[in-house]
Amino acid sequence: MAMRPKAQSNEDRLIGRYFKPLASHPGALGLIDDAATLSPPPGHDLVLTADAIAAGIHFFLDDPADAVARKALRVNLSDLAAKGAKPAGFLLALALPKGTGGPWLKSFTRALGADAKRFGCPLLGGDTVRSPGPLMVSIAAFGTLPRGTMVRRDGARVGDHILVSGTIGDAALGLRLRKTGNAARGWKLSARDRGHLTQRYLVPQPRNALAIAVRKHATAAMDVSDGLAGDLAKLCRASGVAAVVYTARVPLSSATRKALRADGKLLETVLSGGDDYEIVCTVRPARLAAVQAAARAAGVPMTDIGRIVRGSGASFLQANGKSIRFAKASFSHF
Amino acid sequence: MAMRPKAQSNEDRLIGRYFKPLASHPGALGLIDDAATLSPPPGHDLVLTADAIAAGIHFFLDDPADAVARKALRVNLSDLAAKGAKPAGFLLALALPKGTGGPWLKSFTRALGADAKRFGCPLLGGDTVRSPGPLMVSIAAFGTLPRGTMVRRDGARVGDHILVSGTIGDAALGLRLRKTGNAARGWKLSARDRGHLTQRYLVPQPRNALAIAVRKHATAAMDVSDGLAGDLAKLCRASGVAAVVYTARVPLSSATRKALRADGKLLETVLSGGDDYEIVCTVRPARLAAVQAAARAAGVPMTDIGRIVRGSGASFLQANGKSIRFAKASFSHF
Repeated sequence: MAMRPKAQSNEDRLIGRYFKPLASHPGALGLIDDAATLSPPPGHDLVLTADAIAAGIHFFLDDPADAVARKALRVNLSDLAAKGAKPAGFLLALALPKGTGGPWLKSFTRALGADAKRFGCPLLGGDTVRSPGPLMVSIAAFGTLPRGTMVRRDGARVGDHILVSGTIGDAALGLRLRKTGNAARGWKLSARDRGHLTQRYLVPQPRNALAIAVRKHATAAMDVSDGLAGDLAKLCRASGVAAVVYTARVPLSSATRKALRADGKLLETVLSGGDDYEIVCTVRPARLAAVQAAARAAGVPMTDIGRIVRGSGASFLQANGKSIRFAKASFSHF
Repeated sequence: MAMRPKAQSNEDRLIGRYFKPLASHPGALGLIDDAATLSPPPGHDLVLTADAIAAGIHFFLDDPADAVARKALRVNLSDLAAKGAKPAGFLLALALPKGTGGPWLKSFTRALGADAKRFGCPLLGGDTVRSPGPLMVSIAAFGTLPRGTMVRRDGARVGDHILVSGTIGDAALGLRLRKTGNAARGWKLSARDRGHLTQRYLVPQPRNALAIAVRKHATAAMDVSDGLAGDLAKLCRASGVAAVVYTARVPLSSATRKALRADGKLLETVLSGGDDYEIVCTVRPARLAAVQAAARAAGVPMTDIGRIVRGSGASFLQANGKSIRFAKASFSHF
């Protein structure tokens, strides 16, 4: 009898072994098909976002596989949270360098599966290709929300309060620690502080718990990924307004406060360094108490850091009444 | 007055200049937001697919920017076509090597925009990142179809006819020509034949014109991207059936027929080489005439190449009654 063509390629085996367990959504068809189906509930929109991360650019070549998996999914979940959407699923395009082994894939897919479950965002499908260079993970994530309720960047109005979730600057200092451990000796941080900051860079904590509060109360919102200063300026530009932020009100972790006390020049890094994956949003004054109560109930504080005013740009006022001059307000790889 | 944070990063400028013109869908929000919205019409499902292509793996480093753009979108459009879906839009994650210039981006986005318009598949959003290695283009594409009508891989039934669109093997021979131009001298092809084959590799022709015919008539379908032999074997495996293909019936272009006459050993490359981006599907005998008439009306012939039978695997019968023995039935980068 003639040898018949193989029904399973190496890629199929790789998918079957490592990725199929993550495809719990019925629309994923167990990853045996070329496409998945997804339908928002009646009266709902689908919200779509895509973010890619590359080794040596968005994470370190020696970052553990589980941290890479979590970062890749969470930077997308953060966008869904800021838009007020409930996660529904994601597509994964994974470019693997030659020789990526089973243990790496096992760790990567196990962490990805754990996050997919935790955030209610199952794998729907995707593509696994050989990378001619370093590892790259490209994810398109989907969420749902009642029709027409996506919180956009362009809705901020004069008089709105500006709120930010969690704490700002941790990840930027964590990246600095990772790159120049020695230079940070003067920061006088405990091992625990250093651990907090490096972990905040390594694995983002997307604020999906705040999605409903943001959707119900915010006039505009976006996630803070390229630095609070630059991202808030982008929100203002889209909305045709200006922002005044009282720098002393920007919420900081105790580790970041310690580092700032030791080296005040770090303030610019804190406010513009990026990788926060917090939410910045604007709310009408009448909604301020309600959104803060909803945020407390969700377990993530939202701090009132300033107001929307007429004009353009985002000013960060200091105690002396002067604004900070940023050398570089927003992080960009280009 | 203090210098305010810039509201536009280099990435924003790049997006505004090159990609915004492609974002014609209202849900893309002019690419100023972090996410897009998309909603299938009432009673419809959204079909999702993702495919990535990398320089040096899926295309040549010196391929022109416009061909790379078209291939990246079209390999995804091909999946939508085979599933019976009407294109609705796509997300793009583009990893650009350092120093990618304006002329490249202009050519890339112009071709991408032309195809987006031609196939009714506008840019909804995405991400542009720096690539630490070669260029990589990752696309997630979305289509719509009446609820529950996606044509899956697993619906083939014993007795079904097997049909394939267009012609098979051109792209695999085109790739061979590209890699070993000299070795192909013995094929005795005209310049026009060589042009046809290399173009079929360079720019796929997705069969979106056949989507409705496939959705209305096919019991199972998939696009042929990794070789007819291997892909048909996958369809059979998913459906729990076997296929018998009459090799002489497989539709070939005149260029491929000439090459085969000169070198019969190329048959395996033709049947298993990949990059065809044709559709293989199965239909009940009662639907054969209707699907072929619909395909003719759509301008792309669908050829009846064999039958679905009990068993497993896909056999390619030759005129002498023997099946072909494939050294490697399916293309895989792993």
